[in-house]
Amino acid sequence: MAYLNDNYLKLKAGYLFPEIGRRVKAFCDANPEAAKRVIRCGIGDVTEPLPAAVVAAMHKAVDEMAVRESFKGYGPEQGYEWLRHAIAENDFRARGCEVADDEVFVSDGAKCDTGNILDILGAKNKIAVSDPVYPVYVDTNVMAGHTGEANEAGAYAKLVYLPCKPSNGFIPVPPKKHVDVIYLCSPNNPTGATATREQLEAWVKYALENKAVILFDAAYEVYIQDAAVPHSIYEIPGARECAIEFRSFSKNGGFTGTRCAYTIVPKSLNAQTKTGEWKPLHPLWNRRMTTKFNGVSYVVQRAAEALYSPEGKAQVKALVDLYLGNAKVLRDGAKKAGLKVFGGVNAPYIWVRTPQGVTSWQAFDKILGEANVVITPGSGFGSKGEGYFRISAFNSRANAEEVARRLQELKW
Amino acid sequence: MAYLNDNYLKLKAGYLFPEIGRRVKAFCDANPEAAKRVIRCGIGDVTEPLPAAVVAAMHKAVDEMAVRESFKGYGPEQGYEWLRHAIAENDFRARGCEVADDEVFVSDGAKCDTGNILDILGAKNKIAVSDPVYPVYVDTNVMAGHTGEANEAGAYAKLVYLPCKPSNGFIPVPPKKHVDVIYLCSPNNPTGATATREQLEAWVKYALENKAVILFDAAYEVYIQDAAVPHSIYEIPGARECAIEFRSFSKNGGFTGTRCAYTIVPKSLNAQTKTGEWKPLHPLWNRRMTTKFNGVSYVVQRAAEALYSPEGKAQVKALVDLYLGNAKVLRDGAKKAGLKVFGGVNAPYIWVRTPQGVTSWQAFDKILGEANVVITPGSGFGSKGEGYFRISAFNSRANAEEVARRLQELKW
Repeated sequence: MAYLNDNYLKLKAGYLFPEIGRRVKAFCDANPEAAKRVIRCGIGDVTEPLPAAVVAAMHKAVDEMAVRESFKGYGPEQGYEWLRHAIAENDFRARGCEVADDEVFVSDGAKCDTGNILDILGAKNKIAVSDPVYPVYVDTNVMAGHTGEANEAGAYAKLVYLPCKPSNGFIPVPPKKHVDVIYLCSPNNPTGATATREQLEAWVKYALENKAVILFDAAYEVYIQDAAVPHSIYEIPGARECAIEFRSFSKNGGFTGTRCAYTIVPKSLNAQTKTGEWKPLHPLWNRRMTTKFNGVSYVVQRAAEALYSPEGKAQVKALVDLYLGNAKVLRDGAKKAGLKVFGGVNAPYIWVRTPQGVTSWQAFDKILGEANVVITPGSGFGSKGEGYFRISAFNSRANAEEVARRLQELKW
Repeated sequence: MAYLNDNYLKLKAGYLFPEIGRRVKAFCDANPEAAKRVIRCGIGDVTEPLPAAVVAAMHKAVDEMAVRESFKGYGPEQGYEWLRHAIAENDFRARGCEVADDEVFVSDGAKCDTGNILDILGAKNKIAVSDPVYPVYVDTNVMAGHTGEANEAGAYAKLVYLPCKPSNGFIPVPPKKHVDVIYLCSPNNPTGATATREQLEAWVKYALENKAVILFDAAYEVYIQDAAVPHSIYEIPGARECAIEFRSFSKNGGFTGTRCAYTIVPKSLNAQTKTGEWKPLHPLWNRRMTTKFNGVSYVVQRAAEALYSPEGKAQVKALVDLYLGNAKVLRDGAKKAGLKVFGGVNAPYIWVRTPQGVTSWQAFDKILGEANVVITPGSGFGSKGEGYFRISAFNSRANAEEVARRLQELKW
């Protein structure tokens, strides 16, 4: 009598993006003419080709795989040493953050890692997430049995939701009550907000006092332009004792279809056993990755390494400039359309208030139906996202300009 | 007070292959001359380059990623339709097995999938594994909290171990007692045995009667030469109601460093909720993959697709012929050395009885120290593996012949 994991049955509807996909398909099937002018600013998926340095590195790696002498079979599950070194050196040590090469774990996605990290954490943790929130943080906790049932608004019992709103700059404030694990995302998906140094210091202080673990998702780090905004949680003293950081090559190198990311687990980060002992999490994550993962494709790891070459860095900067330029066009367009706009400065997402009385999904349907633009309804990210929608700046400049124009034509 | 997952602390020593790696490194560091002649037949890692059809497909796919019009961002988490179709059509429907395209889930590894499948199964299942066993099945159950502590011999409480020995052809017999989930691996890693149709029929009958789920690992399917041996569990009537099948491109296409695999979850396979309802597992696995996974690299999926082209199939056959030819050389060599030999006919692994009184690790150290050959100690696969060792046939023909020669020179 095999049992299934009942926790999955608590999950509400589909994951947000499949649901958007279904609605867009239904619209396009019913309106073949309008379908031709649909512009997708929903899913945060890059549109520009891989940087030339990456393409060259991949061709070279494929050629190596074609010859016995240079062929690569199983690599280290944690990633090749040359990639772990390039990451630690460029993304952390060059910025004054202490991260050792063997604290870097290369993976096939930050989404995967932020889900899989729960494998090594205990079932008794009190979990806090932002609201609105990247749905994967919530859904993976539901699947792992860390929550109760969802209420009418889609909020799950036992999870602690930290409201994000204009008054706190859409960055959650440490709660009065005790929590054990906190998800923070900066630059934020979906709001495009970034945490200031003071906000992160407050969180590290809270985590150290509460012996909590911060799961810091910095997948959009490359978009930070403001010199005062921290790029890594490890810029904050004490973070090596309380934080895990997730990064991705999806949004800097355009790897959403190529798949490479990494996670930093400092060796100085401990958590508690049931009997009250404190033990490091690093060996647990190492064991998890060697047992349940087999490393990222060699060709893809060489692709990621190429992003750290001088040419690669210049090409990433050009991509970021393009997408942030789009963000400015979209911000300006939405503002001219009379909408209240947040984000889009240090992040590729614009977070827009819907006009009075219009729900997120109503805005989605109207913008799709009348402007033929796909956005993401804010309520898909949590109850505090109701009354907002997200516009992704991942597009061509021409499309961004066209979307800005169409937004101004809409009559609400 | 963040809690860690205490179940990880029950795990014994390192995962087998890292431990072998450590011993080999220590030997090579201490014996630099002998190190030069070391031949590795330990880890089952392929040695020959990627097939030419795969190399061509990867170059083409990389070029597509270099141009905006053909660039691919996020793909379907379950795999591209063209790959799911090629798999279902070639590996199943062409062999008379009913498998729909959308029952195929493309992933980055069978090791990952056999571990991750536990996500969708309940915590109350009684789990059965073979002994000897591929360690990942056991370790992932330990991590998930499905076991008690390990005893002296390394066997975990609560797991049901099904002994594999010469008298049952190293294929386990259905137990008298009830279990809910059974791992079967054919062709078998580590023993190289294959389950006959009658043996699989007995297991499907048991699973249907007990409403159990069979996790069927067929990662080595391509090595089956004997026309009577089933290639898929779905050749057995009733299997679509009780079995999940895992396959890999690692050992046919040589993808150990390229990373692609797939899992079949039939829509007719149900499991029980806590309240006794029967629900299909397919939507749970679909939800798991869309939430915790982001699909396999586009370039790698095109590589896998190329294995189904006429050229790809011919090139895979040449690889299989090479490795199975090696297996014959190694079998013959070990026999001439006076050792008792199993497997290596429909599988790339030879399972060898150690001489009387010699433990698996003693054999490992002697063969490494005197013949400078790395094998895998059978006891690393479970207590019933004690007194055996595994030789991998993944090597060049010249190396296989040299290993066969050196085995005959050993004095036990």
